Amino acid sequence: MTELIRVERTDKKKNKPEQGKLGFGKHFTDHMFIMNYTDGRGWHDPRVIPYQPIALDPAAKVFHYGQTIFEGLKAYRTDDGRILLFRPQLNFERMNRSNERLGVPDVDGEIAIEALRKLIEVDRDWIPSEEGTSLYIRPFVIATEPELGVSPSLEYQFIIIMSPVGAYYPEGVNPVKIYVECDYVRAVRGGVGEAKTAGNYAGGLKAQELAKAKGYTQVLWLDGVQRKYIEEVGSMNVFFKLEGKVHTPILNGSILAGITRRSIIELLRHWNIEVVERAITIEELYEAGRDGRLEEAFGTGTAAVISPIGELNWQDDPLVINGGKTGELSAKLYDTLTGIQQGRIADPFGWMVEAAGPEAK
Amino acid sequence: MTELIRVERTDKKKNKPEQGKLGFGKHFTDHMFIMNYTDGRGWHDPRVIPYQPIALDPAAKVFHYGQTIFEGLKAYRTDDGRILLFRPQLNFERMNRSNERLGVPDVDGEIAIEALRKLIEVDRDWIPSEEGTSLYIRPFVIATEPELGVSPSLEYQFIIIMSPVGAYYPEGVNPVKIYVECDYVRAVRGGVGEAKTAGNYAGGLKAQELAKAKGYTQVLWLDGVQRKYIEEVGSMNVFFKLEGKVHTPILNGSILAGITRRSIIELLRHWNIEVVERAITIEELYEAGRDGRLEEAFGTGTAAVISPIGELNWQDDPLVINGGKTGELSAKLYDTLTGIQQGRIADPFGWMVEAAGPEAK
Repeated sequence: MTELIRVERTDKKKNKPEQGKLGFGKHFTDHMFIMNYTDGRGWHDPRVIPYQPIALDPAAKVFHYGQTIFEGLKAYRTDDGRILLFRPQLNFERMNRSNERLGVPDVDGEIAIEALRKLIEVDRDWIPSEEGTSLYIRPFVIATEPELGVSPSLEYQFIIIMSPVGAYYPEGVNPVKIYVECDYVRAVRGGVGEAKTAGNYAGGLKAQELAKAKGYTQVLWLDGVQRKYIEEVGSMNVFFKLEGKVHTPILNGSILAGITRRSIIELLRHWNIEVVERAITIEELYEAGRDGRLEEAFGTGTAAVISPIGELNWQDDPLVINGGKTGELSAKLYDTLTGIQQGRIADPFGWMVEAAGPEAK
Repeated sequence: MTELIRVERTDKKKNKPEQGKLGFGKHFTDHMFIMNYTDGRGWHDPRVIPYQPIALDPAAKVFHYGQTIFEGLKAYRTDDGRILLFRPQLNFERMNRSNERLGVPDVDGEIAIEALRKLIEVDRDWIPSEEGTSLYIRPFVIATEPELGVSPSLEYQFIIIMSPVGAYYPEGVNPVKIYVECDYVRAVRGGVGEAKTAGNYAGGLKAQELAKAKGYTQVLWLDGVQRKYIEEVGSMNVFFKLEGKVHTPILNGSILAGITRRSIIELLRHWNIEVVERAITIEELYEAGRDGRLEEAFGTGTAAVISPIGELNWQDDPLVINGGKTGELSAKLYDTLTGIQQGRIADPFGWMVEAAGPEAK
């Protein structure tokens, strides 16, 4: 597709929310990007249009058979007014791996990034500037063919919406309490756990609500076969510092390949800290916790970047980690990665992509 | 909710498709039912309206986190002009079990059936009358709150759409060839396999397409833990006649509790044929097939009712069942159940519910 992206600007701009009250994914910018796919014709009609409802036939396959994929990434406004994206190519590469698993057609990554640049250009005054704020970007694909046969859809829409979001921890990075889930399972080898698709999230809501009722922020999922290997936390990958080395579950097909996860591993190795990707049992983690070898634990994800874990609870047996406080390494990783993302410190990896330069005066 | 169902009739009736060319889920009637849910207020504003697109915010949770549930049932037109439904209470009971698993609010079963009666009354001239045809009914719930936090939606829509469908086997019941899937997994204990939710179908599409490319109609799923126990076929439960007794996988939490499955078990027991619900390995089935003890195999589901299985293929080892022909018991079950459904033979179980009497002259 070499079609030009058409831009239709709104004549009714919304009032922007206060930067201190953004929350996460509650407010959306004035425009959205959309393009259509039809079998035989491919992706076509790329356009930036005013943010508006999508009108779909009630038989559209997304409502019935769940063919839908999403991504999440952020744009940051630097002190000198440039707009930076964090490794956007990796999001669109992952989106296509998810697409492949779900029978959804590929979206050309370069076109997706071009679409995103155009959308950011149109809505750049929505990108907040306060410490810790950013613009959360949600690209997604939905199956729209109105037909009830259980088969891959012949029509799709690829859409990008954007939401200004606040600091994930308004009072600074705080350790979270995580409940180790033993009854419900998120994913299993051979399933779709590796794909960023809606069904993985729907299935996790119940366990998450039960954990919240017990005072825990999220759940830690165990593998679906043996129920003993650590997989991931609700919306984050997990890392454990054990006697100076950092361990994280290996990507086994049922775990999401987080882009923050990958970046943390690269950053740690850049610092000459050993990272071990392997199968980790909850039992050995508890043993290490009991005898003082578990020094820190943290989750990684686009929303919170780094989220220190202050307590685990497995089978009603709480395990406090690092005295329930944020560890030194967790804090250093958070400061470094958010510093790179916000353009405040050097980016030795070439991770940041400039979506737009300083605004013309 | 005791709110009256409002009816808004279309003034642009569609042309009805030819009864011989209906297919499955391709044509929809002139009207649909819809009601809304908002947290605190519950379900409200039940209405029959002209069939039309649903307009949703692009941030609606159904697109991102997959909170959606569906059901499938059929209405039949009898020779004397009455409209019959097959055990609709069971569909709405199952819908609420699925809702519970996915964190979706309950839909009152009586209101759902009342809604369905009203919708059928308005669109009754869409119910086809030719042998083997029926009106397929698709109730579904979607999460509509426009918010990107991963948490249960605070807003939903419950919708019913209807589609006149043709005979599943226009040339009569024909045995299908089924591929035993060893790489991909549909569901696992602790997951959502028991719920009729979109994600279960999205995850199965890839294996289904690969099986089709090899000449097989659908896949037979094995359990996600040991990969040896038989679970279900793509869109059907499965039964095996072994030395006069009928065996079917026990409902273990990862298998859909089919209403046709349940009815077949009740019908067989009514005939004094022993039914054994248990864990069945693919290996023992192959052994039974090799030494002549496997007499028949068939799938059960709303779309095809009974679908004889003429061949299985496990690890490139085809197993022909009953010479690839429809078995005597499969044929008798098909004739009996479809006879009851279409009101041609007596219904000793009280399964059929009259949705409408003969049309007033």
